[in-house]
Amino acid sequence: MHLLNSFGPNPRTLRIYLLEKGLDIPMTDIDIIGGENREADYLAKNPGGAMPTLALDDGTYLAETIAICEYLEECHPQPPLLGNTPEERAKTRMWIRRTELNIGEHMYHAFRYSDGYALFEKRVYCIPHAADDLKRKAQDGLAWLDTLIAGRDYIAGDRFSLADIPLFTVLDFMKDAGQPLDRGLANIAAWFDRVGARPAVQASVHPQAAELGWIG
Amino acid sequence: MHLLNSFGPNPRTLRIYLLEKGLDIPMTDIDIIGGENREADYLAKNPGGAMPTLALDDGTYLAETIAICEYLEECHPQPPLLGNTPEERAKTRMWIRRTELNIGEHMYHAFRYSDGYALFEKRVYCIPHAADDLKRKAQDGLAWLDTLIAGRDYIAGDRFSLADIPLFTVLDFMKDAGQPLDRGLANIAAWFDRVGARPAVQASVHPQAAELGWIG
Repeated sequence: MHLLNSFGPNPRTLRIYLLEKGLDIPMTDIDIIGGENREADYLAKNPGGAMPTLALDDGTYLAETIAICEYLEECHPQPPLLGNTPEERAKTRMWIRRTELNIGEHMYHAFRYSDGYALFEKRVYCIPHAADDLKRKAQDGLAWLDTLIAGRDYIAGDRFSLADIPLFTVLDFMKDAGQPLDRGLANIAAWFDRVGARPAVQASVHPQAAELGWIG
Repeated sequence: MHLLNSFGPNPRTLRIYLLEKGLDIPMTDIDIIGGENREADYLAKNPGGAMPTLALDDGTYLAETIAICEYLEECHPQPPLLGNTPEERAKTRMWIRRTELNIGEHMYHAFRYSDGYALFEKRVYCIPHAADDLKRKAQDGLAWLDTLIAGRDYIAGDRFSLADIPLFTVLDFMKDAGQPLDRGLANIAAWFDRVGARPAVQASVHPQAAELGWIG
């Protein structure tokens, strides 16, 4: 196995996952700022142009961060980052989807249509006049989540899980890219600090982050 | 287990999954047109207000259609609808995410902001001025997918899988709700007819579909 890695929240999600699991996979960096992920060679491996991509031993490629994590979890069940039982794993998947569809996706789209527009205008179909509303929808999603996680330490319950990682990486990126973290959401803020203090999270920042001013 | 079921593409996805698996779970219908899924009793079970919800035997509730299907797949592995190996399951999950994030979600948001606005304006934060662009983004996603599935029978490869179901149900719903199926996308059109001919798919239409004029 071999990982095509880069700057950005999704590759960082995978790096955190690998560090938490104690897995070591060789990595090659793709220059996403220069658009290497939109060129023919990369698109032949991952036609979505998204990062990261895992090259499997059978010569095929696996894309989509959560699908990659689920694959690695099947191959390396310990320590479990989805859960110990079908019910725990189901709840983790439920929270991944809830946070992604109600918060993360709105933030990513809003970023591409506004603060990241110069990078994305020729790469994806942009809707700049929806950016402010999408930021608002993401904040509404966070306010909703803030009430739901009251009294527990992590997104999917009292155990750290894969549900904590993609939400953390998108919030940590966006807080410096036009979508600041609202510290008035006390449960979210405490959770964000709790996750951010983990050694794996601290070790996962990409070297380009300092140069670009965005955490990835 | 007990399923809170309703009209709509996501509950239909779950009904198709159950029929394909040969699983029978008792169901209670929720009146989503009347807003029963936005009332306190339902929100206590599923705070997202989304459909469907699976009541588990331990008294907790599981939401998010794909998370429910993954749960049932763990409990009832045969016949496999994700895949036979970690690699096959990973590819299925990758295609579920690709089609959902590049096609389905854009269609759902566009519907809520335009053709379904009267139903959704008081339920979710709507962005009516983004509806046409979101429809266009979904069509771009379908054109992209059309080239990727050339030469194969199903979305994730040559086997019918869970990746075929949510894409089918959203397209079948939206084709009569302001987002017609472009039959010029020949691979998508052939795949749509292939999936639509399956007995489980034909048996899955909700009784309210005839009354409402939308397929759900």
